[in-house]
Amino acid sequence: MTNNNTISLAHGNGGRLMQELIQNVFAPAFGVKTLDTTKDAVALDLRGHAVISTDGFTVDPIFFPGGDIGKLAVCGTLNDLLVSGAIPAYLTVNFFIEEGYPISSLTSIATSMGQTARDNQVRIVAGDTKVLPRGNAAGIYIATTGIGVMQRADLSLQRIRTGDSVFISGTVGDHGTAVMLARQEFGLHGDLESDCSCVKPLVEKLLSIETLKFMRDPTRGGLAGVCHEIVNSTGLGVRLKENAIPVQDQVRTMCEILGYDPYQLACEGRVLFVCGPETDLAQLKQISEDICEIGVIEDRSSQVLLETSLGGQRIVPELEGEPLPRIC
Amino acid sequence: MTNNNTISLAHGNGGRLMQELIQNVFAPAFGVKTLDTTKDAVALDLRGHAVISTDGFTVDPIFFPGGDIGKLAVCGTLNDLLVSGAIPAYLTVNFFIEEGYPISSLTSIATSMGQTARDNQVRIVAGDTKVLPRGNAAGIYIATTGIGVMQRADLSLQRIRTGDSVFISGTVGDHGTAVMLARQEFGLHGDLESDCSCVKPLVEKLLSIETLKFMRDPTRGGLAGVCHEIVNSTGLGVRLKENAIPVQDQVRTMCEILGYDPYQLACEGRVLFVCGPETDLAQLKQISEDICEIGVIEDRSSQVLLETSLGGQRIVPELEGEPLPRIC
Repeated sequence: MTNNNTISLAHGNGGRLMQELIQNVFAPAFGVKTLDTTKDAVALDLRGHAVISTDGFTVDPIFFPGGDIGKLAVCGTLNDLLVSGAIPAYLTVNFFIEEGYPISSLTSIATSMGQTARDNQVRIVAGDTKVLPRGNAAGIYIATTGIGVMQRADLSLQRIRTGDSVFISGTVGDHGTAVMLARQEFGLHGDLESDCSCVKPLVEKLLSIETLKFMRDPTRGGLAGVCHEIVNSTGLGVRLKENAIPVQDQVRTMCEILGYDPYQLACEGRVLFVCGPETDLAQLKQISEDICEIGVIEDRSSQVLLETSLGGQRIVPELEGEPLPRIC
Repeated sequence: MTNNNTISLAHGNGGRLMQELIQNVFAPAFGVKTLDTTKDAVALDLRGHAVISTDGFTVDPIFFPGGDIGKLAVCGTLNDLLVSGAIPAYLTVNFFIEEGYPISSLTSIATSMGQTARDNQVRIVAGDTKVLPRGNAAGIYIATTGIGVMQRADLSLQRIRTGDSVFISGTVGDHGTAVMLARQEFGLHGDLESDCSCVKPLVEKLLSIETLKFMRDPTRGGLAGVCHEIVNSTGLGVRLKENAIPVQDQVRTMCEILGYDPYQLACEGRVLFVCGPETDLAQLKQISEDICEIGVIEDRSSQVLLETSLGGQRIVPELEGEPLPRIC
């Protein structure tokens, strides 16, 4: 049933094997010599107003071009704090692992998590592992909770007004497409990488833009989902320009073949943001060449409209039912 | 595959069904009119030094006499904060739910969580739900993260000295026994209830005891596990008195039949604590009649010894391998 290379139920029972897992896998992965397992709770050192965010993660396949579930679980929660205007400081991690899961894979996942946390000056301060009997899980599920310190409490959907500009920080649909290609379903293959990454370097610079009103990471539901959130919250409309929205060729091709809308596909390392009309575009381009102005906020249309490259316009629908490909 | 009474994959996809689940199940269960789902992160109002704790939960059966996985998931994390000397303030919740799980059961679980949080003046501020395809989970798994404010930062294993007294706040082994009886394995039945509860009312009073040095909730590994933790951390010994340790008749009987050690069975609503020798026993009894002085700290024996009711003594072993019954 078990051997030294796979997770056994005893790895979750608080005894010697769990200690070995913590000290031999998690401690080096998280970049510390040993993890103190004698404490039930950990003190935080927070200077400022604390902000919290939490998320659960399941992805198939667990490893995909550009990332894995561990990187996704750290970036996802850190990005939620960042787009809320907070700088992340601490992270807690919960693993639910199926009995028999390879310890080498777990080590890769934990190493991704530790690296991503360190790269973004975040400390993983607490965690727990539960092992599920074989057949009661599909590999590994992760839940992360992040604590940050608020830098810009003024960001909010409610501040969006007619005439504001809508920006995206890079190409859309890369994560959803990369995960689907990694499954090698429909006979499709490709070398596209997920955009899975922490948006801290970008957001730190955006926070200095005085005209910034709102940020969101377009994950589940994609670019279209965030635009509909703006419409639903404000009663205003969003007019997007197809020519201005960056979409990689592989994403566009896959969407054409399978009938997907690239604007509904998940991104995991992009920021959609809204700024007032007096924003200095040159200043934004200095922050990142990849930033594109993709649309404007309109008065009371209560719709997300797309000016197509052919000169027409169409309604951009909200994702209904399952995202295709299902990536969470 | 799915109907209106069970969880479908679409309940986890961020669309309409997930909104309905949040507003129709989680909002009333958590005792609020609506849950704001437009924010990726939530501001906390912390006055004092923040402390964090996190834990994952899986239990079979999901409902047991005296509780369910929801109550367990809230109490477990709140208790970890409390025995660390912190008063819990906020909680985040992650659900991993198998497709097809009854919404009525989820509602019961969420209601337990909301009730337990409210009873202990804790706000559930953030959460996430992931739905796992049928066969990729066994019902429901929950991860909780709690944030509290430190009241007694001086509590620590390192303050324990020879001559200190060891106390337990009530009968031991009730949770482990109740869960096992609920499985109706081995032809055993019983009406024993788990002690699953939040220890806040007790801990708030214990925090005023000046001679208090250390608290721990004896969950996985039981009373024996905490005593061995004391021995391993201090190099001192623990001498327990069998006659003084409260064990319910049903727990004792089941242990005798199946060969379990009641001191290794999990409690989920008890506190083991250590106080200096000058402690006023009458004051402790005023806090709770159920508090029992069960042993003393000895010099350098580096063992957990039990004075038996027959006048002999034996070594109390640490749990090796799987806890029996496996309750997590």
